[in-house]
This record gives sequence, structure tokens and C-alpha cells, in this order.
Amino acid sequence: MPTLVLIRHGQSAWNLENRFTGWWDVDVTEKGAAEARAAGELMAAKGLDFDLTFTSLQTRAIKTLNLALEEMGRLWLPVEKHWRLNERHYGGLTGLDKAETAAKHGDEQVKVWRRSFDVPPPAQESGSDYDLSNDRRYAGIPIPNTESLKDTIARVLPYWEERIAPALKDGKRVLISAHGNSLRALVKHLSNIPDDEITGLEIPTGQPIVYQLDDNLAALDRYYLNER
Amino acid sequence: MPTLVLIRHGQSAWNLENRFTGWWDVDVTEKGAAEARAAGELMAAKGLDFDLTFTSLQTRAIKTLNLALEEMGRLWLPVEKHWRLNERHYGGLTGLDKAETAAKHGDEQVKVWRRSFDVPPPAQESGSDYDLSNDRRYAGIPIPNTESLKDTIARVLPYWEERIAPALKDGKRVLISAHGNSLRALVKHLSNIPDDEITGLEIPTGQPIVYQLDDNLAALDRYYLNER
Repeated sequence: MPTLVLIRHGQSAWNLENRFTGWWDVDVTEKGAAEARAAGELMAAKGLDFDLTFTSLQTRAIKTLNLALEEMGRLWLPVEKHWRLNERHYGGLTGLDKAETAAKHGDEQVKVWRRSFDVPPPAQESGSDYDLSNDRRYAGIPIPNTESLKDTIARVLPYWEERIAPALKDGKRVLISAHGNSLRALVKHLSNIPDDEITGLEIPTGQPIVYQLDDNLAALDRYYLNER
Repeated sequence: MPTLVLIRHGQSAWNLENRFTGWWDVDVTEKGAAEARAAGELMAAKGLDFDLTFTSLQTRAIKTLNLALEEMGRLWLPVEKHWRLNERHYGGLTGLDKAETAAKHGDEQVKVWRRSFDVPPPAQESGSDYDLSNDRRYAGIPIPNTESLKDTIARVLPYWEERIAPALKDGKRVLISAHGNSLRALVKHLSNIPDDEITGLEIPTGQPIVYQLDDNLAALDRYYLNER
């Protein structure tokens, strides 16, 4: 039975400050690193093991994966990193904290952006502080300048279909370390969650989510590892 | 001009205790981790950058790579891990410290094993404390039960030819984090060092070795990064 575990990166510096992060490359905090290690310890204690791992191009997800694998004695596992697993791009909101966003755009508008499935925030202006067009890691990649959750799902799923689903069908046990919204994309897909519900699904940091899948990758069960 | 940088893992627990390690998976010490971070800092300060990285299946080399990449802001680079970059397998000497080895085999014999190019230590007995035949990471891999330096070179070079040399010829900048003897294999090959000299070539832990290569991967220059 194919096994898939999803883990959202441990707390980042901007999670803590309540700032929109998106594609900006923010490190995990000490607490976030501890969450990652604890996740690895829990997976090992529960007897979970893997053949392949996937993560984004963002430090907080890669480090979470590395710290968890280290705790499991599994640093030697293959790690495939891809931009399609990156966090949702928050456009012009990137870098703003809750108060700044509300002051600039109004509480009501912020709620719309947070809750809606297909309304993206305003586009990031070229040359802004958080413009990534000169970041070498994204050379040749169609960097978005903003994304709705729908947009995020649309670029995550081709990677799932091309790289991850075939590995699972091949009997590989897979661990994915990624972000709140790239993981929402996968959970929506696997658990058939409607558009208007997925935006409200909170994915906690550092908590391994286990999927038991059938051979066609239909979800038989989904649970937080710390609750079983 | 293709650039290649080699780095031997930072000090391990058994480096410190002067025990034969080989394929046994020993972690880096705090000092070893600091060496790895310092190597990353030095590479970044000297303006070195990479497109691809390679390492062994052993924790001390993988961790050294991860720590160095983290310092460089390059955790997102692709990392390819392969057993052919593992340390030389020390056979029945694995786990013995200097005094134990001398007591068991005599000083003269130990000198022969240390200095000779093609005399392997006695084979590791099956079922010994350091037998790796049940280690999942080596499933399907022809685990040696002992190796001379010549044997090590013979299994490192096919990987060089198949994976690393083509990347360099393709213009990729390459960083390899590996072990004293798997790196000797590469240095011998690149710098045409005779059999009777290579065993005496010491490769210090955590010191990036830079190769400037021509388009056919002939070495134009080789130096320790901290000396330029």
C-alpha cells in the first residue's frame, strides 16, 4: 500500500512576525528547527520509513526535511527539489505584516484574499524589495508575480503527476516537505476537498500528515501522525 | 572554464578517536560541523558558486555538504548522493583504534596497509559489529568487505566518468563532498599522481580544494582555497 507523508516546514521567522512570505526565502526559527527534529523523531518512533523525498527550492522546507531525515538516520535518502512545491506567491503582499496589510488595503479586502480560492493579491511590482527575478535559483522558471490558491494548485499538480504519483505507484514510500499552500494543493487533490473549503483548511507546521493510498492513489485514510 | 571543488568532510567522532571508519556511518563532531560551516563561508567569500553537488551515502559527508551549502545560501542546489563516493572500506580494521590495531596486527603490518596502494586490510567478517549487509541504504549494492586504495579508485572513477565529468564538460560548476580516500581517487586521476605517492597525500578535513580544469578536464591548477 503506497505511503505518503506530508510535512509543512517548521515555524519560520516570518510566520512568527505574521508577515506574508510566499516565495521569499525566510529561514526557520529555533522553534521551527526543533519542530522539524521532533517530526523526524516521531516518524522514526512510529516506524515510518521512506524511499524518496521531495521538497521545494525554499530554505525553510529543505532545512525541515534535512533535520527530520537526520533524526531518522536517513540523510542518505534521495532528495528532489522543485520550484513547483514552493509556497503560494503572495504578490504585492510579500513582506507585509498583518497590520501593514490592513492599513494599506483594509481588513475586508485582506479577508477576501485570505479566504478566496481564485482571487490573487495585487501583483508584485518589478524591482520591489522582494522581486526574485535576479535570483539564480529561478533562472528559466516562470516566476509568478502573484498567485491565488487556484493558481498554486495549477502549478503543483503537474509535478505531482509527473514525479511523485509515478514513484508512489511504483511502490516507493514518499515524504514531501513543503508549504501551507503547496500542501493544500495536494490535500485538496487527494482528499477531494471542495474549492470553498480548502482555503479554510489549516496545515500546522512540523506535523507529519500521513496518507494511506490505494494502488490508484485514492486516499483510504489521512491523519496527523501525532494523533495515532 | 570548468570549476570543480572537492571537500573532505569535517572532523568525525572517529577521526578524533583515531579509529578506522571506512563505510561505518559516523557523524561529524561539533568541530567538524564548524569546519563545514567555515568552508561554506570561505567559498561564499571567495565568490565561488555551483550548479551541481555530489556526495556519498555517508552522514558525515552529506552533513558537511548541507552545512556548507546553508552558509552559502545554496541549500536549493541539486545534491546527488552515491555509494561510489563513500570512504575506502577498511575491512576487518573497521572500528579499531590505533592501539588496538597495532596490538592485533603489529606496527609493521599496519604501516603496510596504510601506505600500500594495492594491499587491502583483512576482510571484514560477516556478522561482525560493523557488518553493513542489513543496512537498507546499500540494498542492491556490491558492498565490499575490504578495499585497498586501488580498489577504491576502481569504484570511484566510473561514477566520475558517468555523472561528474559530463556535468563539468557541460559547463556546470561542481562541488563534491566526500572522504579522504574517495577524494584521493579523484586527485590521483586529475593530477596524475603516481601509485606510490598518492597514499602519502593527506587531504585535510573541511578545506575546499579548487581545481581549474581545461575543456578536456585536464588540471590547469589545484590549490587550497584558504591559501589564495
